[in-house]
Amino acid sequence: VPKIVHHHERRRQLAQAACRLVGAGGLEALTTRAVAREAGWSTGVLAHYFNSRDDLVAAAFRLVAEDVGSRMRSKLADEPDPAPRLWITLSEAAPLDETRRMEATVWFTFLGLGAGDDALRTEAASRYAVWLRLVEDALVALGRSPGDAAVEARRLIAFVDGLTVQALFDGSTWPAEELERELRWLVERAQAAAP
Amino acid sequence: VPKIVHHHERRRQLAQAACRLVGAGGLEALTTRAVAREAGWSTGVLAHYFNSRDDLVAAAFRLVAEDVGSRMRSKLADEPDPAPRLWITLSEAAPLDETRRMEATVWFTFLGLGAGDDALRTEAASRYAVWLRLVEDALVALGRSPGDAAVEARRLIAFVDGLTVQALFDGSTWPAEELERELRWLVERAQAAAP
Repeated sequence: VPKIVHHHERRRQLAQAACRLVGAGGLEALTTRAVAREAGWSTGVLAHYFNSRDDLVAAAFRLVAEDVGSRMRSKLADEPDPAPRLWITLSEAAPLDETRRMEATVWFTFLGLGAGDDALRTEAASRYAVWLRLVEDALVALGRSPGDAAVEARRLIAFVDGLTVQALFDGSTWPAEELERELRWLVERAQAAAP
Repeated sequence: VPKIVHHHERRRQLAQAACRLVGAGGLEALTTRAVAREAGWSTGVLAHYFNSRDDLVAAAFRLVAEDVGSRMRSKLADEPDPAPRLWITLSEAAPLDETRRMEATVWFTFLGLGAGDDALRTEAASRYAVWLRLVEDALVALGRSPGDAAVEARRLIAFVDGLTVQALFDGSTWPAEELERELRWLVERAQAAAP
């Protein structure tokens, strides 16, 4: 067991290094050599944990999705009120601080890459499905019918994704505080629409 | 003059070939060799028109932005009514048919790449600014105040971008007809909000 844990932990550290590189310098910054250097190991060690650059890309994508998802779930576990719960499901995925900005950059960089890669696309679709479910649950808790919540959750996710894309790639138009204001407006609107 | 036109037209054809490749197979499909083959020329000819793969990437990105922009402007020129004008500014950027799907794939693929590339980022920001202006004008024509229109146009663009990302990377959840329905809903909502 310790050996498996160790293997898992190493893969995680290497995937984290890959995320930092992509977050800072985009996809072009992601080379096996740079990842090994960033993680403080040799490319030989990296080859022991990842068969290829594609394998590393998939691991980095999954890592970001898992980090965001587990942060949402842990915050939701501490928050009983429905409106703040909706806020958590939307704001944890948006680039409101350095960590989330890095995560969002990695996410959209890999989504772009996923255009030609069925495995990444499937991974992305399943992550979006999990997120959708969390937003839906928050809307139902706010008093929406399940049917209403399903339609609205898809809209909210599309809107948060779109705001994120704007904030990442045209940053001058969406500084973090304005992005936050917009997300708060979404939550208030959802609250106001509750019966 | 004929020589310049010819040079421009060749670059355009090569950039179109690059777009078709990225639209079908993602960024990984974009190699100078593949572009030359797709366009029916040798890599030697390609090297005469583009200094590097980056140069080609920038040209392909710009080509998509110009095609979408000129299609919007040409349709707007034939449409006097404000609500259909808003529809044009939103729907021409969304993946509602094969052409627009290819364009959107290219756009978001290159945006992802742009995370590490200041020139692409600047290009993207200036394209978004042009689009924003067209949407704002359509909202003002619908009777919104300039201040309102500025806020709402940014929201609409973010929403269309987010829907597009969902439709491209999690296609099962947003088939074209549903995407279209959602865009029509946005236009109706904007009309209803008009004084």
